[in-house]
Amino acid sequence: MSSKRELLPADPAPAASGPILTRREMLAGTAGIVGGAVLAGLPTSVDGQAPPSVAARPTVPADATKLQGASTSPLGGRSPFVTAARGPTGETVGRSLTPLQHLTGSITPADLHFERHHAGIPALDPDRHTLTIHGLVERPLVFSVNDIKRLPQVVRTHFIECSGNGRASYRAPKPDMTPQTVSGMVSTSEYTGVPLATLLREAGVKPEASWLLAEGGDACLLARSVPITKAWDDALIVWAQNGEPLRPAQGYPLRLVLPGWEGNINVKWIRRIELGTRPWMTRWETAKYTDPLPNGTAEMFTFAVDVKSIITSPSHPGTISAKGWHAVNGLAWSGHGRVTLVEVSTDAGRTWHNAELLGESLPKSTVRFQYMWNWTGDETVLLSRATDETGAVQPTRTALVGRRGLGTDYHFNQILGWKVQPDGSVFFHGET
Amino acid sequence: MSSKRELLPADPAPAASGPILTRREMLAGTAGIVGGAVLAGLPTSVDGQAPPSVAARPTVPADATKLQGASTSPLGGRSPFVTAARGPTGETVGRSLTPLQHLTGSITPADLHFERHHAGIPALDPDRHTLTIHGLVERPLVFSVNDIKRLPQVVRTHFIECSGNGRASYRAPKPDMTPQTVSGMVSTSEYTGVPLATLLREAGVKPEASWLLAEGGDACLLARSVPITKAWDDALIVWAQNGEPLRPAQGYPLRLVLPGWEGNINVKWIRRIELGTRPWMTRWETAKYTDPLPNGTAEMFTFAVDVKSIITSPSHPGTISAKGWHAVNGLAWSGHGRVTLVEVSTDAGRTWHNAELLGESLPKSTVRFQYMWNWTGDETVLLSRATDETGAVQPTRTALVGRRGLGTDYHFNQILGWKVQPDGSVFFHGET
Repeated sequence: MSSKRELLPADPAPAASGPILTRREMLAGTAGIVGGAVLAGLPTSVDGQAPPSVAARPTVPADATKLQGASTSPLGGRSPFVTAARGPTGETVGRSLTPLQHLTGSITPADLHFERHHAGIPALDPDRHTLTIHGLVERPLVFSVNDIKRLPQVVRTHFIECSGNGRASYRAPKPDMTPQTVSGMVSTSEYTGVPLATLLREAGVKPEASWLLAEGGDACLLARSVPITKAWDDALIVWAQNGEPLRPAQGYPLRLVLPGWEGNINVKWIRRIELGTRPWMTRWETAKYTDPLPNGTAEMFTFAVDVKSIITSPSHPGTISAKGWHAVNGLAWSGHGRVTLVEVSTDAGRTWHNAELLGESLPKSTVRFQYMWNWTGDETVLLSRATDETGAVQPTRTALVGRRGLGTDYHFNQILGWKVQPDGSVFFHGET
Repeated sequence: MSSKRELLPADPAPAASGPILTRREMLAGTAGIVGGAVLAGLPTSVDGQAPPSVAARPTVPADATKLQGASTSPLGGRSPFVTAARGPTGETVGRSLTPLQHLTGSITPADLHFERHHAGIPALDPDRHTLTIHGLVERPLVFSVNDIKRLPQVVRTHFIECSGNGRASYRAPKPDMTPQTVSGMVSTSEYTGVPLATLLREAGVKPEASWLLAEGGDACLLARSVPITKAWDDALIVWAQNGEPLRPAQGYPLRLVLPGWEGNINVKWIRRIELGTRPWMTRWETAKYTDPLPNGTAEMFTFAVDVKSIITSPSHPGTISAKGWHAVNGLAWSGHGRVTLVEVSTDAGRTWHNAELLGESLPKSTVRFQYMWNWTGDETVLLSRATDETGAVQPTRTALVGRRGLGTDYHFNQILGWKVQPDGSVFFHGET
């Protein structure tokens, strides 16, 4: 952590040069107070975030202290100055991406959690929805949602990431990409649910069962094969995210969460689990979510997300407002456990510095990292590189392309960067 | 934790009595699957939560697997079956309460965070809003919102609770009260901000300064006096909750957060901090937020919230669906540090059992607790009692009335309970 003096530009305005403010001036709500502001005079753009366009800028009273404010309401909306939204939208077989450049901390607001659907979002009645467990079990069971809520609960914070996250920025990085378009298919929630193991113990799994099929209640009946070891480890059937019932786009009323594993195997709207002895080879694990390799073989059942990170501020389309100290921050995560280290380079990878992890680094969750950077005003490239508790470190794009080629569709975890130009503009730098 | 066999009613339907389900039956999406469901036949009410009224119940397709689902969208809405909302609403000088009976986990969704305003919610432009620090400082400073975002950030999860929370249920407990009306002015967020100490060090606090005044930018210029020791300890200036910018109702664009301290001193829309040598004796610390005692003296500057807890499930207006095992759960919190123990009584206080804490008990945050309870079908009273790291334990209502009388308006932390009737109905039991 930098010392306090280093937080500020090297040549602050002399403290004694401004007038001392009186309480009366404050109480009058006067605009244009200048005081001895050592940080005054900065442009108004937000680091790492584009300001709303002039045309769309909301109008507010010149002095809010002179007017009665808005009243209480059933649901508290956002400020008109907050424009974060998912995109692209309007697809039933498609995706929408979390606007990472607008977010802070680790939790993703539920309505900004990324989407990836293969047949749209089904409308389900929680009083009619059921979860059936059958196949190689002693007692086939049908659980209502309320049955499941009666069982011992757990509360766990995990990310979910689409295994296709980062495809465009891997194959063809472009300067105008943003954290949302580079890596917006990762989101984090505090989940409430029950261990899948609890349900399986009720059903009585037969000794020969080694795999299970998890099937969703959407129009394509999306289904994935899961090794039963994951069920005994940390698999969950969840009904809530961030304190409230799951949003329909995230699986309401029930979702399978396999912590750290690629997004689509966390089957939404889950309605059926069948125990068996081998993978079912569904289309979502053969035609999709498999990585063909240059040598003609393919990687299948690549479940756990490898260690990843991205700087979200500064980033495109934001700008850096001035030379001097800035909090460079972003997110790091690993499907293999805790992130133990994030390093930041502010000189295109020549030197690396340990970033601070903000809050506890939870297993299979995102953690916010931060590195204080004193920008000299010169062109440079900012990079982040995470390490997880297994010792795995993010590779460069060059290394990943060398191993996999450019033909793969999934499981990208290369180092990502941002080029900073002397005018303070920031562009995606994907060729690491 | 109960063993697995104990999770279920003592007399489950024989496992072998139901037909074995075939995959074809599942894939056909047939309604009315019965299998060997040991939990089948329960009523459809949700434990601890009233079902939507029949008139308002949404209509959904009979079989969602036969229809293309809804498309992706900029913001993901809630299921029409989820009706959680704050209330009462429509007041500019008033409050709205968090519907605790609808929530799980620890985080409160930002749009369901309770409100308490003294002059309504001001509409503020983040590019014009500033925070001034002056008074007994070396360098009076004016910070823009962007100035503050450049500084080293912290991410911390804390509750905020109105000091009047629980007044009605303390003075005149009524059976039809709900977790929302009993204790709905407590909410928890993951905050992102900067330590207030960072800003004060920039300003250079003079040695004689011992208090500060924190003033909000609303129409009443709400202001509270804060001992400077709190600023050096853990006070924050925050701009984000749960990953996104603060909602206007919670102080957008900047809020003072004094972890663990009564709600109104966490000044929303903060615009000014003045350093001085004594409290300012504002109306919000004299006419309000002071507790007159039976002996004619008064307790003032009662900053930290004492240790508290409430069972949120089961609770009124919910019902218990059947005899047998149920997850009794709720929230516990303390403004003095971590909650270290929550005990639950299922026999009106004759015996107490240690509850499980779900997830880490963070300092000055809420933690979800759980106790597995095997309901015999008899009338009883459920109670919870929390202890914090200072060793403080919740008192009974009788003890608190004995010490304070019924005339006080603030700082209620008595043990709360729910009466369970043989028909499964649940009513507030406040006379502990």
